[in-house]
Amino acid sequence: MTNIKILILGGGGMVGQKLLAQLLRDGLNGQSSLDITLYDMAFPPNQPASVTCVTGNITTQFDMAQLATQRFDVIFHLASIVSGEAETDFDKGWQTNLWPTWHLLEALRVQSDVTAGAYRPRFVFTSSIAVFGGPYPEKIDDDFKCSPQTSYGAQKAICEHLIQDFSRKGYIDGLSLRLPTICVRPGKANLAASSFFSGIIREPLAGIEAILPVSDQVRHWHASPRSAAGFLCHAAKLSEEAIGTHRALNLPGISCTVAEQIEALRIVAGADAVKLITPKADPAIDKIVSGWPRNFDPARALELGFSAESSFEEIIRVYIEEDAPRR
Amino acid sequence: MTNIKILILGGGGMVGQKLLAQLLRDGLNGQSSLDITLYDMAFPPNQPASVTCVTGNITTQFDMAQLATQRFDVIFHLASIVSGEAETDFDKGWQTNLWPTWHLLEALRVQSDVTAGAYRPRFVFTSSIAVFGGPYPEKIDDDFKCSPQTSYGAQKAICEHLIQDFSRKGYIDGLSLRLPTICVRPGKANLAASSFFSGIIREPLAGIEAILPVSDQVRHWHASPRSAAGFLCHAAKLSEEAIGTHRALNLPGISCTVAEQIEALRIVAGADAVKLITPKADPAIDKIVSGWPRNFDPARALELGFSAESSFEEIIRVYIEEDAPRR
Repeated sequence: MTNIKILILGGGGMVGQKLLAQLLRDGLNGQSSLDITLYDMAFPPNQPASVTCVTGNITTQFDMAQLATQRFDVIFHLASIVSGEAETDFDKGWQTNLWPTWHLLEALRVQSDVTAGAYRPRFVFTSSIAVFGGPYPEKIDDDFKCSPQTSYGAQKAICEHLIQDFSRKGYIDGLSLRLPTICVRPGKANLAASSFFSGIIREPLAGIEAILPVSDQVRHWHASPRSAAGFLCHAAKLSEEAIGTHRALNLPGISCTVAEQIEALRIVAGADAVKLITPKADPAIDKIVSGWPRNFDPARALELGFSAESSFEEIIRVYIEEDAPRR
Repeated sequence: MTNIKILILGGGGMVGQKLLAQLLRDGLNGQSSLDITLYDMAFPPNQPASVTCVTGNITTQFDMAQLATQRFDVIFHLASIVSGEAETDFDKGWQTNLWPTWHLLEALRVQSDVTAGAYRPRFVFTSSIAVFGGPYPEKIDDDFKCSPQTSYGAQKAICEHLIQDFSRKGYIDGLSLRLPTICVRPGKANLAASSFFSGIIREPLAGIEAILPVSDQVRHWHASPRSAAGFLCHAAKLSEEAIGTHRALNLPGISCTVAEQIEALRIVAGADAVKLITPKADPAIDKIVSGWPRNFDPARALELGFSAESSFEEIIRVYIEEDAPRR
């Protein structure tokens, strides 16, 4: 049996590295012999010797064409700039979050054409709950319309349409996963408007002050990095029959308010940790976050076997187990 | 007072010409002094001397940039290839129905930037009810999700997202109109999968046989070319406050079955006309059409003052009055 050839675009990033670790540990579809290529602008040190790391920028059209010729069996497309940056740098947002996906899909279509459909990769794309816009029902169901309120959300929604249509025509076998906000992100704060959701847990656990830029009554939808990697692996394994004709999915997660996040932190790490959180309103962050979804009823994803944490405390414990620096 | 500068992309086409005639007859916003430019691949003979006709293909990026520098006050973007052709020629569909819109919007953004927002055209885009996919409720309301089942529908849905985001950021003042199927189209059958909806009325009225490729129980959503031009003019006049933040609209129309269309033809033109309709199933047409919407509750458009015909008979009479060749 030949190796399963896997490409992870954005493989040097936090979720990409979690995905890599899970693939190396568990294999895919019962097969442990994986031939994995990561593509990203940079990589953490000490990548496994068995993994091919290609350094580049997805906006390089030539690279997308080159990668397509390698005929990967599974392509995970995780590469994008984050919501805050796409909002402040309009041009960079569209150039990074939309066109590379188009160029890659077009290059895959060329591969598909030359062999009359014999090549058709599973294409797993990390979309986002930012494809939605308010006003919201109490819980967003699988039929709720996409009406993004940010450029990032618009870019993700458009990529979903591309993946849907390229799949419908048989050029790829695609699936878009609308990830919850990933929390607790390890490492440093990033430019995502959602960055504080992790910061208010991660920094206090490290004994560092954290800024809370929004009201503690803000409710949001979370899953851990471990769950994100699990979603991606699960998506790679699903049969096309199970997926059906509608190729974008809302995923499971935990709905909680910032106050409930903080209460979970108190339970896990004590009152001293909570004291390190300092409210300081940031209207720019508040404006973006106030337009985001708060709760979901992801019936279809649950039926398809996707699963996430069952409490925000569990999300914190996953972080401590996997990522928190040892104090 | 200076002239209102108007651009009609696709101004040589059937709806473009109806729009032109209505603008020349009625003016816009109470002003009759209009400076109108049409852009299309070809034009009918005898265009009014006061109108500038520019021949070109919207896929020419240079032309889109050039047009943007002319700083039109109102841009009607009607240019696209039809659903049937976009389905059979995948590449041409995306190159024609998506990228020119992107290039034009980007060129308009450049104009907007150089004057710190002083230039911001009303941008009226002809989207389509093909942005929707089944299963459908009995009537599609303004909150029904977009899930296109054709490349044409995907291209229109993506253009809507672009127009929404460029408007949100203040580069244009856009509005996407999801036109019903335009019926009765004058002239010859075209490559649109919807072409027969007009053919079964137009050809019998001219004493010519017409093929019906689907069941007469197929229900669909129609408006006349006159209404289409009226929608576009009305969209150009609306205040931005009235439009609000959600810039794609379902429009009014007539929901009827093919059998009801035929009955209306019988009432208007007699049983002999109806005898000229010959059923001949076409599975390719049937597959596309069966995925289309059948009925709408366009509450928002009605509130905003859009209006269409009140019966299919009226649609036939509009055709006879405006377009039917004299026998």
